[in-house]
Amino acid sequence: MSYLEIDPPSRVLMGPGPSIVPPRVYRALMMPTVGHMDPTYFKTMDAVQGMLREVFITKNELTLLISGTGMSGMETALANLLECGEELIVCNGGVFSGRMPEIGRRCGATVREVKIPWGRAAQIEEIEKALKEKPAKVVALVHGETSTGVMQGNLAVIAKLCHAHGALLLVDTVASLGGTDFQTDAWDIDVVYSGSQKCLGVPPGVAPITFGKRAEEAIAKRKSKVQSWYFDMTLVRDYWNEKRVYHHTGPVNMTNAMHEGLRLIVEEGLSARVARHAKMARAFHAGAEAMGMKLFVQNPAERCPTLTTVLVPDGADDVLTRKTLLEQHNLEIGGGLGDLKGKAWRVGLMGEGARPNNVLLFLSAIAGILKKQGCKIDSGAGIDAAGAVINS
Amino acid sequence: MSYLEIDPPSRVLMGPGPSIVPPRVYRALMMPTVGHMDPTYFKTMDAVQGMLREVFITKNELTLLISGTGMSGMETALANLLECGEELIVCNGGVFSGRMPEIGRRCGATVREVKIPWGRAAQIEEIEKALKEKPAKVVALVHGETSTGVMQGNLAVIAKLCHAHGALLLVDTVASLGGTDFQTDAWDIDVVYSGSQKCLGVPPGVAPITFGKRAEEAIAKRKSKVQSWYFDMTLVRDYWNEKRVYHHTGPVNMTNAMHEGLRLIVEEGLSARVARHAKMARAFHAGAEAMGMKLFVQNPAERCPTLTTVLVPDGADDVLTRKTLLEQHNLEIGGGLGDLKGKAWRVGLMGEGARPNNVLLFLSAIAGILKKQGCKIDSGAGIDAAGAVINS
Repeated sequence: MSYLEIDPPSRVLMGPGPSIVPPRVYRALMMPTVGHMDPTYFKTMDAVQGMLREVFITKNELTLLISGTGMSGMETALANLLECGEELIVCNGGVFSGRMPEIGRRCGATVREVKIPWGRAAQIEEIEKALKEKPAKVVALVHGETSTGVMQGNLAVIAKLCHAHGALLLVDTVASLGGTDFQTDAWDIDVVYSGSQKCLGVPPGVAPITFGKRAEEAIAKRKSKVQSWYFDMTLVRDYWNEKRVYHHTGPVNMTNAMHEGLRLIVEEGLSARVARHAKMARAFHAGAEAMGMKLFVQNPAERCPTLTTVLVPDGADDVLTRKTLLEQHNLEIGGGLGDLKGKAWRVGLMGEGARPNNVLLFLSAIAGILKKQGCKIDSGAGIDAAGAVINS
Repeated sequence: MSYLEIDPPSRVLMGPGPSIVPPRVYRALMMPTVGHMDPTYFKTMDAVQGMLREVFITKNELTLLISGTGMSGMETALANLLECGEELIVCNGGVFSGRMPEIGRRCGATVREVKIPWGRAAQIEEIEKALKEKPAKVVALVHGETSTGVMQGNLAVIAKLCHAHGALLLVDTVASLGGTDFQTDAWDIDVVYSGSQKCLGVPPGVAPITFGKRAEEAIAKRKSKVQSWYFDMTLVRDYWNEKRVYHHTGPVNMTNAMHEGLRLIVEEGLSARVARHAKMARAFHAGAEAMGMKLFVQNPAERCPTLTTVLVPDGADDVLTRKTLLEQHNLEIGGGLGDLKGKAWRVGLMGEGARPNNVLLFLSAIAGILKKQGCKIDSGAGIDAAGAVINS
């Protein structure tokens, strides 16, 4: 059998990630591979750590890349903090927070869930109730829930609450870091991880993570070893720090790509980047609503700017719409996950995707497709509303 | 703080991996990122699976890429096969086989070790003795031990022995697959994994793995879930097969790079490629010995062609020699690991590295460095001996 060279299309990536990769990141990705113990690679690793600290807004020493995708960040965070029989509280309101109890249980933890209705953020009182009921070692939640489009606010208050009850706060920022305001140190979050392929604008394959002092102490006090050798931070750390103890072969080219993705963020300035994502989300939400579409997340304050769940309008064909967007416009959005399967679309405005042209392209492309399906769509109102925000 | 663009040197990578990446692989690596659920990406995944089967020489359905480096392949293999309290026998004769007991214990297994003197292969009688002493669920060994340069032979015989005792055979081919003869089905090996960055000639970051029928049945019969969610083959499998159930975001660009690396192997032909590696190893060994250097592995039949351990000659400075090779010749080799630290060099002839020019470059470069340090080196004899094999 013969295999042809790949020739992937240039997609307009507006799904839940991966997002559009900037040319400079591709260029870094294809720079020559050097050894994982090469002095020049160590310099790249140091710079990546420095820039990750800027993006996480933290001074945490234990800040590095996990050699796996975003989900490996979730597993690393939970597996390092939890030992057999320890208590984990998960604020579960979507597919991704819904994976935390499963992974926690596989780490041997006893898991309790604060169930959040899909489309809503967790209420502080509910977390407090769970903590008062019984102490927990870790409280875990997702900042930007990619399945529902909800962003959890009040993280500083939740962190304070957790610490008052002796618990660590673990936060998933896979869909939000680099695209929304997130302040690890100021909000006093103990463990935060993300993924390379969303608002950081790098292909999928590495997961940034940071551990604060409390979390480091918790790891130091473990009675048993971390069940995963590959994700054991006590081992991975000594490859990233000045000891340079070989643990596994670092994903050199992906690390180089992350280096360039982070450089782009530092150049743009984190606050300008966050403002850009917020503005593009406002333009998109205004345009979609003016056009006659409905957003799944009711409370505007709880909407994650980087990922919007749009309800599939009455009379529209979910699969056909996405297929037409992909085939006719080379434009990818995500289908609904879990309870939202067939009921919502997931539209990402992440990294390079969060640009005016993408907002307008999506709105104008889907308007035509939905009109053809007989849906009532006011394309002019939508484009005008989005344009007004873009040009504000 | 400002961060400069990376500008990595073009190293001649002759260490234990990563190896030299061919231009076509870089080109595939920087092709546009598409979504992990894009129909064009599914085609790439299918082709990667097809070519992996050709390289593993297997019909195993469960053949795919793990989204992590070679060590994640080791963890995946052990974690999926072993449950708490089950027996694992490890043939331990180097740093990498020496990691298997540790990872096995973290999976809850009871581990027994067949200790192999460094520089030797495991004896079948010893494995038989261990199996007769007490049955085991899994016997694990390393095919090409990157720390010692030993290649384990007689794998078909060992597999037969394991199966006669009801054990599964798990083999690490991180340093050997694509560079030496390895036949998963003909030798009846149950689980085999490798890494992208050695004889497969792709940057580090993904780990090919294959599970045979017996191993699949063992996974199906597990009483407990695999402790790692990220590496759980029952979940990863359904993303790679026709079900296409989303599990984690596949490392799209690294998968594309692997696709091209595998295409290069299929084009060259696996047996021609294996013969090339064998010939380059013969040329290198002949040259090094004629020059007056000594190889660590005494028995030529037990030498792994892709990775050679050369003893640091009397009077030579290990670190200075490697530093000079890197700085003056842009040439990377590996230092000794574990017991061989400071005592041996690890020279890889892997993938694109296994070419006549690299053999001659290394021999002539190190000859000058060692002569300057006062070592007795016959460069002419070395170059002649290597040349004779190259031109044979």
